[in-house]
Amino acid sequence: MKKNKASALQEVRGVNQPEPVSAASAGNIVALRSRDVPIEQLISGILAGDITALSRAITLVESANPAHLEKANQIIKACLAHARPSVRIGITGVPGVGKSTFIEAFGKFLTASGKKVAVLAVDPSSSLSHGSILGDKTRMEELVKDPNAYIRPSASGETLGGVARKTRETIMLCEAAGFDTIIIETVGVGQSETAVHAMVDFFLLLKIAGAGDELQGIKRGIMEMADVVAINKADGDNVKRATLAKTEFNRALHLFPAKKSGWMPKVLTCSALTHDGIAEIWETIQEFLSATKANGYFEGKRQEQNQFWMLETVNEQLKDRFYHNPIIAAELEKMKEAVRRNELSPFAAAQSLLEKYFKS
Amino acid sequence: MKKNKASALQEVRGVNQPEPVSAASAGNIVALRSRDVPIEQLISGILAGDITALSRAITLVESANPAHLEKANQIIKACLAHARPSVRIGITGVPGVGKSTFIEAFGKFLTASGKKVAVLAVDPSSSLSHGSILGDKTRMEELVKDPNAYIRPSASGETLGGVARKTRETIMLCEAAGFDTIIIETVGVGQSETAVHAMVDFFLLLKIAGAGDELQGIKRGIMEMADVVAINKADGDNVKRATLAKTEFNRALHLFPAKKSGWMPKVLTCSALTHDGIAEIWETIQEFLSATKANGYFEGKRQEQNQFWMLETVNEQLKDRFYHNPIIAAELEKMKEAVRRNELSPFAAAQSLLEKYFKS
Repeated sequence: MKKNKASALQEVRGVNQPEPVSAASAGNIVALRSRDVPIEQLISGILAGDITALSRAITLVESANPAHLEKANQIIKACLAHARPSVRIGITGVPGVGKSTFIEAFGKFLTASGKKVAVLAVDPSSSLSHGSILGDKTRMEELVKDPNAYIRPSASGETLGGVARKTRETIMLCEAAGFDTIIIETVGVGQSETAVHAMVDFFLLLKIAGAGDELQGIKRGIMEMADVVAINKADGDNVKRATLAKTEFNRALHLFPAKKSGWMPKVLTCSALTHDGIAEIWETIQEFLSATKANGYFEGKRQEQNQFWMLETVNEQLKDRFYHNPIIAAELEKMKEAVRRNELSPFAAAQSLLEKYFKS
Repeated sequence: MKKNKASALQEVRGVNQPEPVSAASAGNIVALRSRDVPIEQLISGILAGDITALSRAITLVESANPAHLEKANQIIKACLAHARPSVRIGITGVPGVGKSTFIEAFGKFLTASGKKVAVLAVDPSSSLSHGSILGDKTRMEELVKDPNAYIRPSASGETLGGVARKTRETIMLCEAAGFDTIIIETVGVGQSETAVHAMVDFFLLLKIAGAGDELQGIKRGIMEMADVVAINKADGDNVKRATLAKTEFNRALHLFPAKKSGWMPKVLTCSALTHDGIAEIWETIQEFLSATKANGYFEGKRQEQNQFWMLETVNEQLKDRFYHNPIIAAELEKMKEAVRRNELSPFAAAQSLLEKYFKS
């Protein structure tokens, strides 16, 4: 587990290489580019469905530069006034379940039915792994070439809160640009599912049959979020196992309490390879939408989600400002040490930090 | 669901009754009581194992009065200097699993072995339900009369964070008063387990066999926290089913990744009624303690927990101050409404609130 461990496999490091592009001139280029395009032009471009304008606006949303954020806010405000109906679909599943292949098949099906599809991702680890989800667009070869599809890799960020905020704003921009079906992909690792669930209308859990996966699937938290569980790779020799898994999941789902949406979650099988079951998933989503729009759940949930994200943003920023305060940054280490040595209770140490913060 | 609905069952309200005790004189009595006892006397009382002094100090910890909190902090600081070795055991399980009866049997076993046992609870709902856990001390008839046991119901509070903070401080006071075995009970409802897990050395999950409970038990989050799963009510006709459940849980536990503690979770059966298996649970806890003290996990985890609670307290208070700020309280409703009407993005609304807050 230890890094830097001496080993015969370790290479001599060699001389330092210069950066391929000077950081200063890269910064200038970005600044120039965004100076180039006035906000009004970006807004009218987005509303006209121009992908270049959309991508530039998303880059502003993702920027750490406060001037860019200010611009992004103005663009989003203008876009909100032109909000169009859309459906936001969250898709999750552990690695190996075939998410990319599924989204490619599902996305192509949707564009063939006349939909405009945006595929986004929430993956807080992507800044470390350099974009583990959707980073490699070649995994969606067909969809990436489709003029009615727009694929954008996960925003990067230190915190899930930051990544989630950027994705939320990106959804609004994509919708203003005329994308009526928004797919948000996430990996099956816990916290990020909760964040994605809180920004979508419909949540699809992808599973495969076998390999102890049925049992893992009964993570109550994730299972309870799912509106549909789709058993993928139901093709060839696998069909029988997938059908068995379907029965098992159906039984498990019936043990959970009824959903606020009034929707009884369904288990389906599909194959991203043969495209079997893809149309049925879309039909089921449409049934869900009719039911939840009729009973008022759809609109109520969107409003709740907006308020939730407002409060989340406040809480994130309160923490950010505190921990990035230079006085606190220095004092925090001292307090951690005092708590570690049992000289102060965690509560007393926290109070001392808070007093210093609010005095400054 | 609506209250105040006209109904034939509704009674005429009648005249207003005076409060049974005047709020002003009740306040005076509390103030007088705490003025009565100087801090030094409370500290020396606690260190001498005096239960009255301990209870008074806990009341200060639980108070909403800043002057009381200041006193509580001084007492805790003094007590920390006299910290004694202890084991902190978290116990959870859904209602009906027999938690109170188990704790009574387990607690009596411990005091008979020469231990001093404090039983606390974390139940954020208790302020509403007037103490659903441990509120009714009569459910632990024997333990409550035991001079080597101290039972304290859950602190009340609006937030889990508040309740958890009070319980953490209460643990420290109990340890200073000579209690070497701290049991913290919680109901099986999610968030509060996570809080309790973060304040104990060892986590015990109580289950019963049958009734679909095996499946529910495979809530990954809670199962992963458990160091021991004990199948309770393994008596009479139930023994066979409990033994079967034991096998099933053992299989499920082996699917989870290895724990950082190096401890392989165990499944045991027990009966709080016949006392079968109670001694075995305590032996297993001692094995756990030997193993984790030897590999450094025990001490490392306690230090980590202290730092975690320091940061949690900071985060809680940052939010508290923000949402209780009178300017924000008024503005928040306006912003929620603007977000609801899609006039502002959640992010822009949050920023506007934050600007007003940091200006004030």
